[in-house]
Amino acid sequence: MGMTIVEKILAKKSGKDEVKPGENIWVNVDVLMTHDVTGPGSMAIFKKNFGENAKVWNNEKIVLVPDHYIFTKNEHAMRNIEYVNQFAVEQELKYFYPPFTNKYKGVCHTALAQEGHTRPGEVLFGTDSHTCTAGAFGEFATGIGNTDAAFILGTGKLWVKVPETMRFTFEGKFPEYVMGKDVVLKVIGDIGFDGATYKCMQFDGDAIHGFNMEERMTICNMAIEAGGKCGIIEPDEITVEYVTEKTDKPFELIYSDKDADYSAEYKYNANEMEPIVAKPFNPGNTDLAKNLGDVKLDRAYIGSCTGGKTTDFVAAAKILKGRKVAIETFIVPSTVKVEEALSKIIIDGETCMEIFEKAGCKIGPPSCAACLGGPVDTFGRTHANEVVISTTNRNFPGRMGSMDSQVYLASPYTAAASAVTGHITDPREFLGWEK
Amino acid sequence: MGMTIVEKILAKKSGKDEVKPGENIWVNVDVLMTHDVTGPGSMAIFKKNFGENAKVWNNEKIVLVPDHYIFTKNEHAMRNIEYVNQFAVEQELKYFYPPFTNKYKGVCHTALAQEGHTRPGEVLFGTDSHTCTAGAFGEFATGIGNTDAAFILGTGKLWVKVPETMRFTFEGKFPEYVMGKDVVLKVIGDIGFDGATYKCMQFDGDAIHGFNMEERMTICNMAIEAGGKCGIIEPDEITVEYVTEKTDKPFELIYSDKDADYSAEYKYNANEMEPIVAKPFNPGNTDLAKNLGDVKLDRAYIGSCTGGKTTDFVAAAKILKGRKVAIETFIVPSTVKVEEALSKIIIDGETCMEIFEKAGCKIGPPSCAACLGGPVDTFGRTHANEVVISTTNRNFPGRMGSMDSQVYLASPYTAAASAVTGHITDPREFLGWEK
Ligand code: SF4
Ligand code: SF4
Repeated sequence: MGMTIVEKILAKKSGKDEVKPGENIWVNVDVLMTHDVTGPGSMAIFKKNFGENAKVWNNEKIVLVPDHYIFTKNEHAMRNIEYVNQFAVEQELKYFYPPFTNKYKGVCHTALAQEGHTRPGEVLFGTDSHTCTAGAFGEFATGIGNTDAAFILGTGKLWVKVPETMRFTFEGKFPEYVMGKDVVLKVIGDIGFDGATYKCMQFDGDAIHGFNMEERMTICNMAIEAGGKCGIIEPDEITVEYVTEKTDKPFELIYSDKDADYSAEYKYNANEMEPIVAKPFNPGNTDLAKNLGDVKLDRAYIGSCTGGKTTDFVAAAKILKGRKVAIETFIVPSTVKVEEALSKIIIDGETCMEIFEKAGCKIGPPSCAACLGGPVDTFGRTHANEVVISTTNRNFPGRMGSMDSQVYLASPYTAAASAVTGHITDPREFLGWEK
Repeated sequence: MGMTIVEKILAKKSGKDEVKPGENIWVNVDVLMTHDVTGPGSMAIFKKNFGENAKVWNNEKIVLVPDHYIFTKNEHAMRNIEYVNQFAVEQELKYFYPPFTNKYKGVCHTALAQEGHTRPGEVLFGTDSHTCTAGAFGEFATGIGNTDAAFILGTGKLWVKVPETMRFTFEGKFPEYVMGKDVVLKVIGDIGFDGATYKCMQFDGDAIHGFNMEERMTICNMAIEAGGKCGIIEPDEITVEYVTEKTDKPFELIYSDKDADYSAEYKYNANEMEPIVAKPFNPGNTDLAKNLGDVKLDRAYIGSCTGGKTTDFVAAAKILKGRKVAIETFIVPSTVKVEEALSKIIIDGETCMEIFEKAGCKIGPPSCAACLGGPVDTFGRTHANEVVISTTNRNFPGRMGSMDSQVYLASPYTAAASAVTGHITDPREFLGWEK
């Protein structure tokens, strides 16, 4: 019996010819990612266990991306940033992107890809549940806790149980109005928010491979929202084209064997997909956007590692071009590079940024911002009882700041269309497609 | 009546609301590209017409990429390089990539894209007939002569006749063994080597948009081989993802109107495509690779702006992995970046470069090399009566050096498979696909 791509990567990184789902193995880590919220905990445990003056196992394999609580006056948040800064200096970390400098990047999962730290065939751990985003590059990438991260900091290894792989195949081609977000919400809606618990979710088929890397990242990002250990997409020419020039490091193209064993197989006709929305209070609570026209909205949020990449904003700009938003609408690029892109890409004579400004959007600096509520002085805790449409990835109570707000998750097309009307709106109404 | 993408770009760059095919207009040039072979002539005419001390219209809009005769001791070639070097220094050209320095890039058409000089919505002229390569990025790009180039050097403008647009739509999806080269050879075979004379060739359909940028470049590169003025592919998310981080400049996404007028429409079923070869002595003289098994070969060449990009070599490496070539086989990366990529991309434990070395290939430094024969001391003129399979774009008598050699043009898959057997070989035999 052959192996899946994830099994093959884990076999290689554990020095074995073969691994089987359920087996526990020691894995050699290629990259450990951490940020300002979870970094201090991991670093403190590392020091406690390995000694106050211990050195990390490899200062070129740790990527430190402070991104969560940046544009805030919250003292605790600022102390965290100082703490990780200090650690980076002490340990001479090669890849550290400090806030308030010209090295600052923005949200870790987007920045990792843009800075060349996501590479096919590797093993990436991160102290953030959405580390699974990087599975889009054909690597094993998953979130871990502080204790595991501390152990990796000291040893470069982790004890891992090989996950079973579920495969979701989308044949055909997605209609233009269907984005990565719709695709992953469809899957989570079908299998439930715990439907992939400790499984690898492999996304496959011509339609998935027709997406650019940013869209693939959106899909893998939300594997964790179905309980998945990781999401993964096999590398192809588009992956290689994206990665090659971003890194000096070699990377291996690994594919599932043809006779690999999947614990479940789901097949979809991509052509029949429609815009989807996840209702409060979990991403598996889905419905078609066109069925939710009665939901009146107070605010729209377009941003985060799931919905704040260049592709997301180009989509939103196509809707918002020449229109005005009816509700308070935030545009928060996930990284500085995305922010720069919005001033470069011109649609009908206007940059995306100009389109957003003219539409009446509020534009925030790149960071996690309201995606996770943020400290008291960032937006997200100022209104109660609000109904929000958001391109983020989580909608449990309180996620975006207020315990009694209601968050609907949607693609940037749907969020932008809804921002224009003030109620949940199928974007086909605005893009000249028939519903 | 609406306009095609090329009409819309030309209208915009000539300050008009509308242009029609056949109309002559003054176009403002965004980029002028020149190299070591044609550059000296253009520069000399510029000096003659505008004065010995004249300054170019804009030293940030000229891209000078010496690439044709680089690794040679030919004195005339070296004088040309010195001449353009001198001009670049005099004129303080911002984008100049001198040979024999760490700024050297390699073949102009690949380098232009990799260095961010190909941008959607722009007008690019180049003193090289394959300048049409850049149409892959959704811009108007075409080759011009020295007199026109001299005029642009002085004024930044050119008098252009708006071409009619032929559209070639590939619905469905290409089989994995079909590459950009097969696609464009199919089209040239159908319409003939003069079938698109002074026309724009727009390539469209889901299958085309499923290709990465390098494959799209291969297709547009050969528009000139059917007599086309330019090739073009509308920009999409993959285009934006490729271009955004390579340039600081803004660029506009322009698309054909839905009611645009095409002078001819060709529709293809992508799923039915098969590997194609162009026989001597023109690229329109095509047959299916599987029908040409009787053609015995003396040499294989994998390189050039059409067949020497990263995607091309990954394809070749998949075939050559664990095999030996039966005939002299040259691997010539088009650029330094492509060369670097070949040492980074690992397939089954070996880099592409290692695969080529073990297969017994000869690896050359990045430049045009034998694609156009080269001066006497580069390879290409050493054998007579040879039969060559090549991933390049031209096969008229003498193109690769010897007047009585015969050149068959093919994809890197087909060229690599044929290198292994010593006769023209359908790559499906090696990739586990049925014919
Ligand atoms: S943008 Fe949101 S989901 Fe993404 S890393 Fe930041 S807080 Fe987490
Ligand atoms: S590689 Fe060949 S076709 Fe391309 S620019 Fe050089 S000589 Fe011309």
